Amino acid sequence: MSNTSAPTMHDKLTNMELLTLDNPVFCCYLFWATVLVVKMLLMSLLTALQRFRYKVFPNEEDLFFKNIEVQFDDPHVERVRRAHRNDMENILPYFIMALIYVCTNPNPLVACNLFRVAAIARIVHTLVYALYPVPQPSRILAFATMLLITFYMAAVVALRTLRFI
Amino acid sequence: MSNTSAPTMHDKLTNMELLTLDNPVFCCYLFWATVLVVKMLLMSLLTALQRFRYKVFPNEEDLFFKNIEVQFDDPHVERVRRAHRNDMENILPYFIMALIYVCTNPNPLVACNLFRVAAIARIVHTLVYALYPVPQPSRILAFATMLLITFYMAAVVALRTLRFI
Amino acid sequence: MSNTSAPTMHDKLTNMELLTLDNPVFCCYLFWATVLVVKMLLMSLLTALQRFRYKVFPNEEDLFFKNIEVQFDDPHVERVRRAHRNDMENILPYFIMALIYVCTNPNPLVACNLFRVAAIARIVHTLVYALYPVPQPSRILAFATMLLITFYMAAVVALRTLRFI
Repeated sequence: MSNTSAPTMHDKLTNMELLTLDNPVFCCYLFWATVLVVKMLLMSLLTALQRFRYKVFPNEEDLFFKNIEVQFDDPHVERVRRAHRNDMENILPYFIMALIYVCTNPNPLVACNLFRVAAIARIVHTLVYALYPVPQPSRILAFATMLLITFYMAAVVALRTLRFI
Repeated sequence: MSNTSAPTMHDKLTNMELLTLDNPVFCCYLFWATVLVVKMLLMSLLTALQRFRYKVFPNEEDLFFKNIEVQFDDPHVERVRRAHRNDMENILPYFIMALIYVCTNPNPLVACNLFRVAAIARIVHTLVYALYPVPQPSRILAFATMLLITFYMAAVVALRTLRFI
Repeated sequence: MSNTSAPTMHDKLTNMELLTLDNPVFCCYLFWATVLVVKMLLMSLLTALQRFRYKVFPNEEDLFFKNIEVQFDDPHVERVRRAHRNDMENILPYFIMALIYVCTNPNPLVACNLFRVAAIARIVHTLVYALYPVPQPSRILAFATMLLITFYMAAVVALRTLRFI
């Protein structure tokens, strides 16, 4: 553990290796970021599914059924769209924040567990918002989990880079 | 595995070089990501253009003409806003997904063509959605093209990083 | 200060060092991107604050007060949501654009000042849009500042990578 600082044994990653597959923390980020990207894209498909199920379309050229009009206020469709918008508001900034957090060479155990908890929290958020609405505070807790993790990463990065303000 | 800073023939990129201008795949990503960023920002300007053309503004302080009220349901403005939102839903996750796909050192020919097709598909999507609405399934096909490409990249990355779950 | 396995004087960064904490330009990007991520996440909390202050909630399960209904058109809430959406439309593409701009090894003085101006412009945008609405063109100027900076970065990157089209 506390060995000599000989650079040969690859005990310690150089800065140049942080954003490579040689860094287990980066690999863990890649995996869970991929899970969240797929989850977000599935929201588009879920919206489309709801649109066809309830025959609610926002454009003239989308009216695939006879005798329907464009419509914007269907509660089933709008619920999925709100969940999707919430994903964009929270997960997209998280992607950037977590990526630059990896660049600060964080403790692997802490970093990997943050990635796991954040991703699972957002999957729970989707389940309790868009799929099976349940009473609060389930959605608030799922929302707050990734929010607090992102704030924590922001604090770590800001402290490390404050002198470059 | 090992970084091998020895001056070899540069036949094969080391992991450390993947996110540099020495990697043609990364350069190709940079170019087409830039095209898509510019395309997305032009949607903001197109929305502004429609707002001035049809005198539809959402805020009190934006009422640049006399005798108008704030208004939120103009179909010309809302169409551009829906196209813009669809861009955010699809292109922004794609940016992250394609970037981490580059980190897995993909086949250059496959990767570069995926970047090209995905970017052109989204330009077509904007044309047939926001500029010249045409009958379906043109927009669905343009939408599905980037979606499937992103799913493919997700599958590649997830398989490579699955053991870091 | 830096590890510098290369035997040079570290006057000039290699491509491999651009996305590391050894690059002051990257550190400056990290700091200001972190500021903007935090600013964006605070918009979610500001929306929640407005929802509780004016008792306006979009979901049945969010009705924390008696005798209220779901409601979608409260001007105080919608103003914050428009500002938040504008953030997503502009700041999220900027994150990617600025990151890949760093990869082109730009002039440090130019790059760092662009990061600073862009971030401060968006903070001003939030102040004059969501917190204290003031007459135009204050918001338009704040909006245009980051837009033009992003276009400039796009031009730099596109010119450097044009042959990989």
